[in-house]
Amino acid sequence: MIVRVDVGHQTWTKTPCLDEWQRLGGRGLIARILLDEVPATCDPLGRQNKLIFAPGLLVGHMLSSCDRISVGGKSPLTGGVKESNAGGTTGLVLAGLGLKALIIEGQAQGMDWQILHISSSGVRFESAGDCLGLGVYDSAAYLRQRYGNRVALALIGPAGEMGLLTAGIVHLDKDGVPSRISARGGLGALMGSKRLKAIVFDGEGGSRPPLQDATAYRAAQKAFLEALLAQPQTKIYRELGTAGVATLSNQFGALPVCGFSRGQFEQIEQIAGEQLREVLLARGGEADPSHACMAGCVIRSSNVFAGADGRTIVSPLEYETIGLMGSNLGIADLDAIARLNYVANDLGLDTIDLGAALGVAAQAGLLNFGDAERALMLLEEVRHGTPLGRLLGCGAALTGRVLGVRRVPAVKGQALSAYDPRAIKGTGVTYATSPQGADHTAGLTIRAKVDHLNPQGQVTLSRTAQINMAGYDTLGACIFAGFGFAAAPEALRDLLNARYGWQVGTDILQVLGRQTLRLERAFNRAAGLGRADDRLPEWMTEEALPPTGAVFDVPAAELDGLFDEIET
Amino acid sequence: MIVRVDVGHQTWTKTPCLDEWQRLGGRGLIARILLDEVPATCDPLGRQNKLIFAPGLLVGHMLSSCDRISVGGKSPLTGGVKESNAGGTTGLVLAGLGLKALIIEGQAQGMDWQILHISSSGVRFESAGDCLGLGVYDSAAYLRQRYGNRVALALIGPAGEMGLLTAGIVHLDKDGVPSRISARGGLGALMGSKRLKAIVFDGEGGSRPPLQDATAYRAAQKAFLEALLAQPQTKIYRELGTAGVATLSNQFGALPVCGFSRGQFEQIEQIAGEQLREVLLARGGEADPSHACMAGCVIRSSNVFAGADGRTIVSPLEYETIGLMGSNLGIADLDAIARLNYVANDLGLDTIDLGAALGVAAQAGLLNFGDAERALMLLEEVRHGTPLGRLLGCGAALTGRVLGVRRVPAVKGQALSAYDPRAIKGTGVTYATSPQGADHTAGLTIRAKVDHLNPQGQVTLSRTAQINMAGYDTLGACIFAGFGFAAAPEALRDLLNARYGWQVGTDILQVLGRQTLRLERAFNRAAGLGRADDRLPEWMTEEALPPTGAVFDVPAAELDGLFDEIET
Repeated sequence: MIVRVDVGHQTWTKTPCLDEWQRLGGRGLIARILLDEVPATCDPLGRQNKLIFAPGLLVGHMLSSCDRISVGGKSPLTGGVKESNAGGTTGLVLAGLGLKALIIEGQAQGMDWQILHISSSGVRFESAGDCLGLGVYDSAAYLRQRYGNRVALALIGPAGEMGLLTAGIVHLDKDGVPSRISARGGLGALMGSKRLKAIVFDGEGGSRPPLQDATAYRAAQKAFLEALLAQPQTKIYRELGTAGVATLSNQFGALPVCGFSRGQFEQIEQIAGEQLREVLLARGGEADPSHACMAGCVIRSSNVFAGADGRTIVSPLEYETIGLMGSNLGIADLDAIARLNYVANDLGLDTIDLGAALGVAAQAGLLNFGDAERALMLLEEVRHGTPLGRLLGCGAALTGRVLGVRRVPAVKGQALSAYDPRAIKGTGVTYATSPQGADHTAGLTIRAKVDHLNPQGQVTLSRTAQINMAGYDTLGACIFAGFGFAAAPEALRDLLNARYGWQVGTDILQVLGRQTLRLERAFNRAAGLGRADDRLPEWMTEEALPPTGAVFDVPAAELDGLFDEIET
Repeated sequence: MIVRVDVGHQTWTKTPCLDEWQRLGGRGLIARILLDEVPATCDPLGRQNKLIFAPGLLVGHMLSSCDRISVGGKSPLTGGVKESNAGGTTGLVLAGLGLKALIIEGQAQGMDWQILHISSSGVRFESAGDCLGLGVYDSAAYLRQRYGNRVALALIGPAGEMGLLTAGIVHLDKDGVPSRISARGGLGALMGSKRLKAIVFDGEGGSRPPLQDATAYRAAQKAFLEALLAQPQTKIYRELGTAGVATLSNQFGALPVCGFSRGQFEQIEQIAGEQLREVLLARGGEADPSHACMAGCVIRSSNVFAGADGRTIVSPLEYETIGLMGSNLGIADLDAIARLNYVANDLGLDTIDLGAALGVAAQAGLLNFGDAERALMLLEEVRHGTPLGRLLGCGAALTGRVLGVRRVPAVKGQALSAYDPRAIKGTGVTYATSPQGADHTAGLTIRAKVDHLNPQGQVTLSRTAQINMAGYDTLGACIFAGFGFAAAPEALRDLLNARYGWQVGTDILQVLGRQTLRLERAFNRAAGLGRADDRLPEWMTEEALPPTGAVFDVPAAELDGLFDEIET
């Protein structure tokens, strides 16, 4: 079913899913709905844009790492298609309510702030009341008190209320902590433009989505789980989390350091995944180096970062944040990074774009690299909505334009994640060409066994990664679940066929991925994004990155041809 | 001849003009050079962009109102083609030196600031020295002391030095006052990125451009002058200046008032052209309601605005500034507007974009409408380069994005001039479709005898106006010279044929205009600008404008077809 909510008239409908949408979910379904219903040239913060929640095709059965929620709309940050997915409980509850998508539409300008309550008995609007203006953590506590501890939530913080262009939408993890963020592309500002502080998903009375062949499903589930557990990566991510990649990235000379000015950090050992694990094991108390964000996840790549007193500072502390708010700012202290992370989360901001923006601000002289206290003060500017704070909260690209800094790490207005594309060129190709803008989940290549400095072959590498990721995002599968599906594509085939009664093949991941990318590219074209936007910033093609001395030199013509085989 | 300066290597060359460029000048030549030499997707503030000075085809003979200088490059504000022309003496001196274009190129990042000195003996670089950091007025005084009172100057103020995206380039008028501004599109930031504080044009040893048939030229000049003087408009503009249109614009309900929230101003009589003339006549002293910015101009639409003591506050005070920094800010006091204008000029900023940005800031609560003192304080923020000041100096579009204001009057990132497009729809079509972005010189339609509220026929009206204006800008002719050429197209034909030995017809204005628009559109397409960018802001299609209640309702499909007949 599709629930459609009009925030202007405070009305809603629940209708069967269109036949054409049935075989899509998550990221792919969002692209389809945008193409079908949202004028691509519309004002992202205006009447015509829509905010869409769509669980992926696999969501609803607590399959390990496959209950992700996709949130999307036309991006207020990039002006193009946007999907930003997260773990936690929102996807599971939405699927349990039998909803293929929640579509929020209409004009809310000047209206009072609302909380949207969605349950098996329908939809209701309630006043946001005292929740308005609260940080993410207090908002979640307030809402869990008001609606009970069993609901799922999607909410915005002060950043979303203020309409800051890198505001995200925050979901609860399986333990009720507001820590899973649909962070990228400003969807929190879009939610704010609809005057919704939070959406409460009450799963009471819901049930697991039906299975066409339960026996076959169980068998496929078992095969997937075995394949996943057999992967060496699963153990690495369980022990070190995403932070495990920091050492590798540094070895390649691709870690963002002091405003992407070099690729290796002298103090890497103080912030790498190995150190993170050691610290958390030593600290005990609430500290947990291996935490699951979704029920049933066997990978448990998340963590709980606690201080010396064993009390939580933030959960989780991820590689991208360590890279962008740590080494990128010259900060080599995990406790300091965790505190910055906490404040960014509480504001409801994307730590990638915020960290990149702070790196730009440092180039403009507003912050010394390494000065975590000053960085915290700048985050307070965001909270108070000062012009500087608003600017930082609008991300690296705008911060650079306004502060007169050319060395901005961004594509399509969205900040690069923590891989310098000069030293990991396949990821650079993804940054340049992904319909999502520079993104850490659109197709990374660091683990490919290639010479990352050689421009040859990177387009092919990126294409494969982008297709796979678009596929996972359409399934609602975590990238780390992908290790299992890569080893056992027949398990994925069987899961879908057993659940839906389809007859897809083992290439279904790629079929879905290609389809999703085609839809997204079509929306972007209509929105006015084209080849000129599929480029890394010019300075990255000119300025050599120490210590490798690399520049980004994948030819533009190759970038322009990346999607040819998908689109013809 | 073409002079080409490399700011990175501090070298220069002087070469004959390419044959393909011979029949172009001013705006048309700039578009041609950009297409031929500047990668359209380049970073506007990077190595590959070029800053171009090109006098129009008629420049050099003190033909009334036909000595304008065109300045251009890829716009740091719009990301597209940009030409911004001005009166004053730069064009005349450049033509006297026999130069068809001055092209400034190369990478100057991190280099010391320079003054470029151009004379008949060549080009030299000199240290900017004490001039750096000075306001426009002090800079001009310093440069006139250093280089003598007979040079022409093109210089930037603090805004250009800071790289603010609406910084302009300032030229001297015939009396040596730095008052003629190539204001739009951020060319001052481009000049700043080349680390040039000023360009000194020493005309000593120059001579008037050669005439192929001096007798025929004199005859044509006489015919043009007679036609011009016979036009009723000439007298109106001499008496009231551009401010004469304020009353008319207000009558149509198209004056921007308090952030484009209504189209008529209760206090219109206090700021209209009639009042301006009366005040200036009454004040005497340096006040002058009818001042020529270029030698030989018989229209004299400029003015010198003096205070009650007869001393100059600013020169000139134009309609666009009265509209954007006056009624748009709810300020009904000509003295206050003149002071704001002075400070904006001294900073070297575009008063249109700055006024629009202040209107946006007022919507965000940073300024009360009508509070001129607060507006002045905000301009001091610009001077001090605070984040808020920099933001305002980056124009209305960025200010709106960062401050979370949707009601921003801008197209392609550039602010609308002082005609609300909902009530003057032909001008709205020009704003939407001009390759230059919303612009006050790209094709106004207010004086056409049509129903400005009726969407029908506006595309045709705008097309004609855009073609004519692109033609005038290629000739170096002031829009007001156009009244003469419109009445005597054969005079224009004869002027060109007599000067160059060509055999053009009476349709030469349109031939040039069409060609220029085609070139500009081609550059924009390559830069990634397309139909999605040829739109007015969405809110102007939804929000009715009092008192007419008009919205902008020219169909998008008509906008998209505007250039069809030019391009096929």
